[in-house]
Order: sequence, then C-alpha cells, then structure tokens
Amino acid sequence: MAQTIIYDCDPGRDDAIALMLAVGDPRLDLAAVTTVGGNLPLAGATANALDLLAALGAGDIPVYAGAGKPLVADLVTAPAVHGCGGLDGVDHNSALAPCPGHAAAVIARRIMESDPGTITLVATGPLTNLALAVELEPAIAHRVNNVVIMGGGYHTGNCTPVAEFNIHTDPEAAAMVFRADWPVVMLGLDVTHQATVDDRTQAMLTAAGTSAAVCAGKIMSAYRTAYRGQSAMPHPPIHDLCAVAYAADPTLFDSVHAPVAVELTGSLTRAMTVVDFRPTAPVNHRHTVVTGVDNSRLFATLREALGRLP
Amino acid sequence: MAQTIIYDCDPGRDDAIALMLAVGDPRLDLAAVTTVGGNLPLAGATANALDLLAALGAGDIPVYAGAGKPLVADLVTAPAVHGCGGLDGVDHNSALAPCPGHAAAVIARRIMESDPGTITLVATGPLTNLALAVELEPAIAHRVNNVVIMGGGYHTGNCTPVAEFNIHTDPEAAAMVFRADWPVVMLGLDVTHQATVDDRTQAMLTAAGTSAAVCAGKIMSAYRTAYRGQSAMPHPPIHDLCAVAYAADPTLFDSVHAPVAVELTGSLTRAMTVVDFRPTAPVNHRHTVVTGVDNSRLFATLREALGRLP
Amino acid sequence: MAQTIIYDCDPGRDDAIALMLAVGDPRLDLAAVTTVGGNLPLAGATANALDLLAALGAGDIPVYAGAGKPLVADLVTAPAVHGCGGLDGVDHNSALAPCPGHAAAVIARRIMESDPGTITLVATGPLTNLALAVELEPAIAHRVNNVVIMGGGYHTGNCTPVAEFNIHTDPEAAAMVFRADWPVVMLGLDVTHQATVDDRTQAMLTAAGTSAAVCAGKIMSAYRTAYRGQSAMPHPPIHDLCAVAYAADPTLFDSVHAPVAVELTGSLTRAMTVVDFRPTAPVNHRHTVVTGVDNSRLFATLREALGRLP
Amino acid sequence: MAQTIIYDCDPGRDDAIALMLAVGDPRLDLAAVTTVGGNLPLAGATANALDLLAALGAGDIPVYAGAGKPLVADLVTAPAVHGCGGLDGVDHNSALAPCPGHAAAVIARRIMESDPGTITLVATGPLTNLALAVELEPAIAHRVNNVVIMGGGYHTGNCTPVAEFNIHTDPEAAAMVFRADWPVVMLGLDVTHQATVDDRTQAMLTAAGTSAAVCAGKIMSAYRTAYRGQSAMPHPPIHDLCAVAYAADPTLFDSVHAPVAVELTGSLTRAMTVVDFRPTAPVNHRHTVVTGVDNSRLFATLREALGRLP
Repeated sequence: MAQTIIYDCDPGRDDAIALMLAVGDPRLDLAAVTTVGGNLPLAGATANALDLLAALGAGDIPVYAGAGKPLVADLVTAPAVHGCGGLDGVDHNSALAPCPGHAAAVIARRIMESDPGTITLVATGPLTNLALAVELEPAIAHRVNNVVIMGGGYHTGNCTPVAEFNIHTDPEAAAMVFRADWPVVMLGLDVTHQATVDDRTQAMLTAAGTSAAVCAGKIMSAYRTAYRGQSAMPHPPIHDLCAVAYAADPTLFDSVHAPVAVELTGSLTRAMTVVDFRPTAPVNHRHTVVTGVDNSRLFATLREALGRLP
Repeated sequence: MAQTIIYDCDPGRDDAIALMLAVGDPRLDLAAVTTVGGNLPLAGATANALDLLAALGAGDIPVYAGAGKPLVADLVTAPAVHGCGGLDGVDHNSALAPCPGHAAAVIARRIMESDPGTITLVATGPLTNLALAVELEPAIAHRVNNVVIMGGGYHTGNCTPVAEFNIHTDPEAAAMVFRADWPVVMLGLDVTHQATVDDRTQAMLTAAGTSAAVCAGKIMSAYRTAYRGQSAMPHPPIHDLCAVAYAADPTLFDSVHAPVAVELTGSLTRAMTVVDFRPTAPVNHRHTVVTGVDNSRLFATLREALGRLP
Repeated sequence: MAQTIIYDCDPGRDDAIALMLAVGDPRLDLAAVTTVGGNLPLAGATANALDLLAALGAGDIPVYAGAGKPLVADLVTAPAVHGCGGLDGVDHNSALAPCPGHAAAVIARRIMESDPGTITLVATGPLTNLALAVELEPAIAHRVNNVVIMGGGYHTGNCTPVAEFNIHTDPEAAAMVFRADWPVVMLGLDVTHQATVDDRTQAMLTAAGTSAAVCAGKIMSAYRTAYRGQSAMPHPPIHDLCAVAYAADPTLFDSVHAPVAVELTGSLTRAMTVVDFRPTAPVNHRHTVVTGVDNSRLFATLREALGRLP
Repeated sequence: MAQTIIYDCDPGRDDAIALMLAVGDPRLDLAAVTTVGGNLPLAGATANALDLLAALGAGDIPVYAGAGKPLVADLVTAPAVHGCGGLDGVDHNSALAPCPGHAAAVIARRIMESDPGTITLVATGPLTNLALAVELEPAIAHRVNNVVIMGGGYHTGNCTPVAEFNIHTDPEAAAMVFRADWPVVMLGLDVTHQATVDDRTQAMLTAAGTSAAVCAGKIMSAYRTAYRGQSAMPHPPIHDLCAVAYAADPTLFDSVHAPVAVELTGSLTRAMTVVDFRPTAPVNHRHTVVTGVDNSRLFATLREALGRLP
C-alpha cells in the first residue's frame, strides 16, 4: 500500500523535481501539497505548485497556501538560485488557484481526520507551516507517521558557514519542529550535497522521454547554471528530491539516531542544526539524521517516476 | 457606541478582576474571551474564564481556548501567585465548555468578518494566540483598531531583573506581536506597579455590595497574600485591569510613543521589552508605551463596573 | 588625609574637566594617570592627558599608556563628540611622552606596593586597563580601596537604547570588572545626565578666572556644540566629572546597593549594565549604583578646584 | 637550526607527553614554559611543569606562571581526566618554583626582544595567556613566527556537541587569539582524535626504555582509564602532542587554509570554532586548519624523543 504524504514546499527548482517524484512514484500517495514562502514569495511558490501539478496531469491534487513569512525573522528569498517567476518549461496558468484554508490548519485537520500513523509529512521549505500546525494542534504529533525534512546539516552550511537556507529562513519554526514530540528525519546538506546531478545523469533522466522528463531537464539546466554562479559547485544538488525519495524508499539512505537542536541565539551560528554525535550523547530515537545516499539508485528512482508521468 | 473587544487572557487572579471590568463597563462590548496557557495551564485558565462569566451572568459570551504552550519556550506557570485551581469565591461548573475553534483562528476570523477598525484586541497573558493570529492572517494587522497588552516594562522586571512574566513566558510570540504592522499599546510593569490596591481601596470596592464585588474582594485578598510572599510588595498590583481599563478609557493613563522591541537572545535580558527613549530614537507611532495611571480614577472605574454587575 | 587615586581615562572633553578636578581638589592625591583607547585612539588620549597636565602645572604626575583596543570588540571612537585631536584651549607639545610600562601592569604594581586599602581606582573610559590589571594580578581586588567608574546606566543608554559608550566599547572588560571581587561604584547615565552644565553654570565656573577655568570654559563650549548635534540635549552632561567627584566627596551623590551584571550576548542589549532592583534581589554590597547628584554642589566643587589651579 | 618555541600549557596528562617531545626533539629549542589554569588549577599545572622538567633533566628551562582564571568565564577544571594532583610517575618537589613575571608579560617581552619571525608559540591549554600577551603588546603579532594551538575543532566537540575543552574554558581569549593579526594553526579534535594511542603503540613507546619512556607509559595508562570513563573512547587521544609535533614537523599533518571564528554568544554553540569551508568562503591565509595526521609517524617521532631523554 502506498504511503500517504502531505508535501509542504516552496517550489523552487529542486522542489519541482521532488514534486515530480511525489506524483510519479507509485509507492507514494500525494494527498495534498501545501506551500510556504521561502525560495520564492508565497504567491510564486503556490503558482508554481499549481502550474506544475497541472502540467503533470495531477491537477486534482489539492494545493493549500500557508505562511507567507517566517515567524520572527524577515523573509529573504533566493531568486538567484530559483529564479523570480515561473518554472523553466512549465506553462503558467493564472486561472489556477489554491483551495481555501491555511496550509497549517489543513495539515492539522487532515492528520486528525486520518487514522493514526497513516500520514507522513514531507517538508522541503522553511518549516513555518509545520510549526504552526503542531502549535495549533499538538495532538498531531502522536498521530503522524513521520516528519521528513530537507533542511539543516551537521557539518555543512550554505547561507552561513554552518546554517542551511530552509532553517536559516525560519529558525524559530525549525526549533519548534525539532522540539515537538514527533519523529523527525533530517536530510541536511551533508547528504543532499551527495545528491548532485552531473551531465550524464541528466542525460539518463531526460532519456525517459516524457514531457515531465523534458521539463525536469530544463529545470536542472537552469539550476546548474544558477548553482555554479552562486555556490561554485560544478553540479547542482537536488536537495529536496532526497526528502520525497526517503518517504518512498528509506533504503536509499544511510542514517543514525542522534539528538538535533536548532541554535537560535548565536551570532555566527544562528539557525545551525546542532547534532550531538558524541559517544556520550543522550539517546534520542525521535531524531534520525541521514548521512548518506546511494546517488545512482536515487536518480534511477527518479527516472522511473519521470517515465510514468505524462 | 461601545468599543468591541476580544479579550485574550489566562485567568489568573488579576485577569479575573479585569474580566469583571470587561463585562461590567458600559463603554466596552466584550465579543469573545480567548484563553492561553500562562498563569495557569490552558485548561485551568479556560475553566476559570467560563466559571467567572457564568457567575457574572455573562455565560452567553463565547470562550475559545487557544495555545496550551508557548511557541518555542516551555510553559512555566505561576501557581504561587495565581493558585492551582479555581478562582477564589467562584463556583466551578465542570459542565461548561469552550466553543469549538482555536482562539487564534477565531481572532483572525472575527476581525476579518468585522468592519475595519472596529475591534480592539486586549491581551493580558502570553502573546501566543495573538502571534498565531497575525501569522495565520497577516491582513488583520490593518483591520484591527488597537492591540492593548499588559506585559513587559521598560525599567522594571519581575521574572528577571528586566523581564516581565507574560513576555518571559513566550518571548518569540511577543516579538512577533511588536513586529507586526498594527498599533500596540504596552502597559508594562512600570505602570501596572502603580495600580496597586491597598486595604482602603479594597474596602471601597467591596462596598459596591454586589456578588461580583464580594468575589473581587476574595480574589484580591488571596492575591495580596500570594504577592507578599513572592514579591515582597505590600499591596498587589492589579496588572491586567490596566489593559482593559485602557480600552475603556485611555484618559486614565499617561503615555508616549516610542519604539519597542523584544530581546530574544540575551543571557541576562531575554524577554526584555527594549524601549528606545533617546531623543534621537526613530519616531514610531505604532507603539504606545504607557507610563502612568491615575490610580484613584482607575479603581473608581472598577467600582462602577462592579456595581453594575450582578 | 587626601585619598590617593589612579585615574584611568581617555580624554576626551569631559575627562579633561574631570582631570582638572583630580589635580585641583585638595582631598585627592593623583598618583598617576593611565590612558586607554576610547573617545579617541590611545595615542590621542595619551597626548591630551600629557598636554593637559602640563598646562595645569602638574607635569610631574606620571602618565602611562595602556590598551589601544578593546579585548574582543573593535575600537570605535567618538570623534563627533570629542573632536579628532587636541583639547580645545590646550597647547600640544609633541615632546611630552608617557612613562614606560603598560597602564595595566602599573595599576597592578602600584596597588600591590601600597598599603592595602589606600588606593582608589577611578575610571572614566572603557574598562580595558582595569580588567587587564585584575586579570594579571587578582590580588589587587582585595587591596584596592574602591573602584569608581563612569559608565553604564540602569534606565538610560546612549550608544543603544540601553547601552552606554564606555561599556559598549569594551563589554567583556566591563563584565570582568563587575565580576571581580572588589567594590565597584557605578556612576551611569542615569546620574551623569543630571550633571549637565547650562550657560549660567558655565559662566560661574569661568568666573574662577584662572587659566584652567578659561580652558574648562572652552572645552565645555565645544562639548555643548557637539552634544547638541549628536544627542539633541541642550546642555552637555559632564559625565566623567562625576566619578572623580565621587572619589573626592561621595556625599554629593545618592546611591543604593544592587547587583550589576553586564549583558554580553543580547542582540539588542549587548553591553547593558543590568541592575537588579527587585525587592527580592540578592543582597550585593560590592556594587554601589549611584542614582542622584546634587548638581549645584557638584559644580561648586569644580569651581573650587578650578580656582586653585594655575 | 632548531625552531625556538615558547610552550604555554596546563599539564595535564597529554600536555606532559607533549612536553617530553618539546624537550626531547632536536628540531625544537624550548625557550620557556608558561602555565595557565585549565585542566588543573594554575598552581597544580605549574607544579607539574616544574616537576616534569626536573625529571627530564631540563630544570634549567624557565617556567612562568600565568593566568589562574579565564577572562570572563569561571574556571572549570577537568580532574576526572587529568587527576587532581601530581603527574603519574613524576616525583613532586615542593622546592621548585616558577621564575618571577607573569606568563603573558614574559611572552610579550621575549618576542619583542628576539629577532622577528624566530619564535613560535605553542599553546595547548586555554588561550588566556596568549590573549593577554597580544593585548598588552599588539606588536608581537607581526613578530611571532607562528601560533600553533591545540583546541577547537570544526566537526567535533567534547565539552558540548560542538565545543572543545580549551576553547570552552576561555572562549573570549580564544576569540582574541583568532582575531589577532598573526598566523594561527588550529589542531582541533577532528585531528587530535586521530592521534590515539592503542596498547601496541604504547608498548612501542615504553620500549624506548628510558625513564622518560617509563613515565610516559604510566601517564598514558592513567589517561586511558580516565578517558574510557569520561568519553567512551577505547584509546586516549594525545591531543597536545599534536601541537608540539606540528612545530617540530608540519609534514606529519594535512591542513587547509580556512577562516576560523569563535562563537561567543550561542546558547548551544558558545565556544565553537566556526570554520568556513564553503567554496565561496573568503580567502584567509592567516588561519590554518589541520585536518589529518599520520598517526604512525607521529608516535615514531615521540619514540625518538623519548629515547633521547634521560
């Protein structure tokens, strides 16, 4: 039976690839997409989600808009990495609109109305919506199956030497999510920087031949160009893909249990996800820290999904 | 025409007195009471609000429960000051229940459904519900008439040398409330410590003779005993009364405009409401800092209300 | 018998007035002047001290240069308030030079070589030298008579809403000085903003008729102009004068005992001197917080000194 | 020609092994030992240094005591790891005494009196003395050859998930040392945790047969027992040895240039040495971060030195 997921995202180029996997992988049942301001302002992220789902023939999957700004911090988007407007190769249709209701309220309601343990939350943007959901309805913590996030990192940062974009955008929300009494799987930069797509891999993906595969290729090309300019990395890491892939197949990844906490007050380290790897660290089975990915199997999984999509 | 208010509170002894004013003062139209965990856990605060409204013959005023815990911080209640259970002199009725819906969602909806500028929010507990409301629906910021809070202080603290209980309980929520683009009136400890009730004033109040006046007297006596033990103050300050009284009649108070920000990261000063009183401070007309109260007129106002109540 | 003082300063206009009192008041025996980078870079402050002592006929009082930069922070001087070079009305003599030895080492050695309880340290600049002295020789803490500082404040800031220039320049040094096991008298902005000199007072002072009085008048006029531009205050507070005056005659001032700690980590409150005035504060007789000054007697004291000087 | 070093330490068991290398390696000329409170209180560390030098027939090398406490923080020693008193296998002689003068003043004077570029500072305790030296005499920054420290780490902590003992003991001093304008080589836990001594290595070392080798064996055995109890590591890392070995032969190590800054204000990350490894990090050739060690050659180097000692 497929794993039901609610996917919270801010597409964004790597979110778009991840969304293709979420729609195309038969092991996943995408119940809803919720959007948050992050890579782009909320309206842009929501429009991209709607447009992409329509292009994938999945316009029946409901989209709910959520938080347009972080809890305490000001929103700083990333236009240099994700562009300012529509997704490359995806038609924009201004008639599409999200369903009524705030993403956080919808997440809370859906989980409360479903059988316990049946819904996995996957989040690849700032964690504002998830933090609001569990604050508004703390009981979801014990009803969710898993919370799988792309964000943070234990040895690697991008916004700062030790902080990653999603956590850095809303550190207080991230702290709330890691403190809530639910299981959290963190796929941070240490693992997502292993999930790079080189030219050969991209060629393998686009060879799937579907419209979705062609579109994925266009997005990856634009993403590669942006990443080279911004981060001096030759091949772009498809960060968000990892989180959706983990929900579909955790065996693609290596991971350990270790306690994670978000630094809120450092002048150099604000938004760092501090992981305690010491042998003497307290045991914490709520937090799973992903450390490695089988890059070949990851992209083979994506290719499968692209081939199934229109 | 009366000022419509939604009163967010965590009764609590001084909240209870304030609620009597909110019900009994003809210049106020109490549209709803919303509750938050603070002085007491959420369930206790909600039960107290329901019980007190019933005792005041105002059981038709809807009560909505809100956040049971602060956003990021852990909840630390104040049983030594506010007792562990029911309000002194108020019957508890376990059959009473709050209306469905989260306080934050109700606050947002009520303001969006009312004419712009007609609703004043009065808050005398931790600011969790207000922060959630304006995060869920940022448009309320420009539709609210005023946000009047008891909390903070510019020269005086109680939880720490420079932090007050409500702000200290949920500093991140307080920061969100002061940063949101709405007018905020802060009645902090500098002013509320002027609003003490001595024996003579208490006698004047109970002489109103109504059931409400008798109940207020019992609550004040218990509060005095608790305050002497905890704070070495001879007469208890009825903090929360000030905020409701401000909504009814701002002329009871002196105030200035000055920018207020909440310190989130200090090791000695976390939760301090930092007010910039320098002559060179940027002008900020969104923030009003109340500096003084006419104690006699304040309690005369309360006596009037107590006399009107059953 | 006169009180022996070592005066650590960064002249600076108000330090210069204070130095006149230190030389001219018969109740004080100025054993040494030590300099620190603060209002001006170290070299400028040292040159000003040497030039002024020469002008006052006190060229025999040894001057020792100390720290040119704060411990951790970068030095930010205040040329808009104190000018960029020589003191107004004081001849500069580039042949004058400080005595060999670092101010901190000299402070430590002088105190260790004197009878216990005989030397009072007066400091009106950043506290770098004092912090270094007590770190290098912790035994001075129990041998000093008193440490009297101009700096900080409990309700008033100038560099930030809650931080004063001297503490803000080297917060870590200030923390060390307040944590060391010696008595500290803090004359902060709350009191020094009472020590303003208006036109009439200035006329009274210059009427002393000595060269020193004329020079003091010139310095005060320049200081007034600078202060009006920078701080929107009509009459300049002669901050540093208060600390020297306290050493000469504490009866000019009102004060209380209360614990003081320096905030090092706040994002809004770094360098705030946090004073615990709560009735429940721990008793701390090491820290004296000065709260008021008799402005008339203060300036009468200065006039006396100016009259005694050449 | 041998490299002249001044060795600042807090022996301490691994410092003691490092001191044996400092005395016994012909490529090093140990000009002075300076001591600091850290692993042990200052008096104990100083006594251990004196006793060990005497035992090594190097009683002519001068020892100077320095700071007994960190700048701002309180001293917290590590008796569980380093014992409470004398070094294992080293006779204590209470008649030995350090030379007069504070370590920091001596470091500053020695460097100023030597030819530029001739002295390397090696520090394996809290950095209090080095910070004081460069604050008292900033000119040493451009005259020292190198500053080689054991401390910090970029991915590994021991006192906290991300902070190492020496930096954690005096974070402000560490910040001053990394900010000063001199070259700093950091050998943190990432590399020193590679420098473990297993049973076989220890047997190889003691087989050197000298009194020093026997003593080193006793110290390592006691250290192993302590480390197993405290850190759940099977074989103890001889942290401090790495810093002295680097001064003797940098080719034992791998390293990169990357900027290092010390976090002073984090609530989870205070005292973390934050290294910017991003491809886009600013180039900083002042800071060298050591990443790897050839464990076999390191201990072969130690064996050589032990064989040369009495």
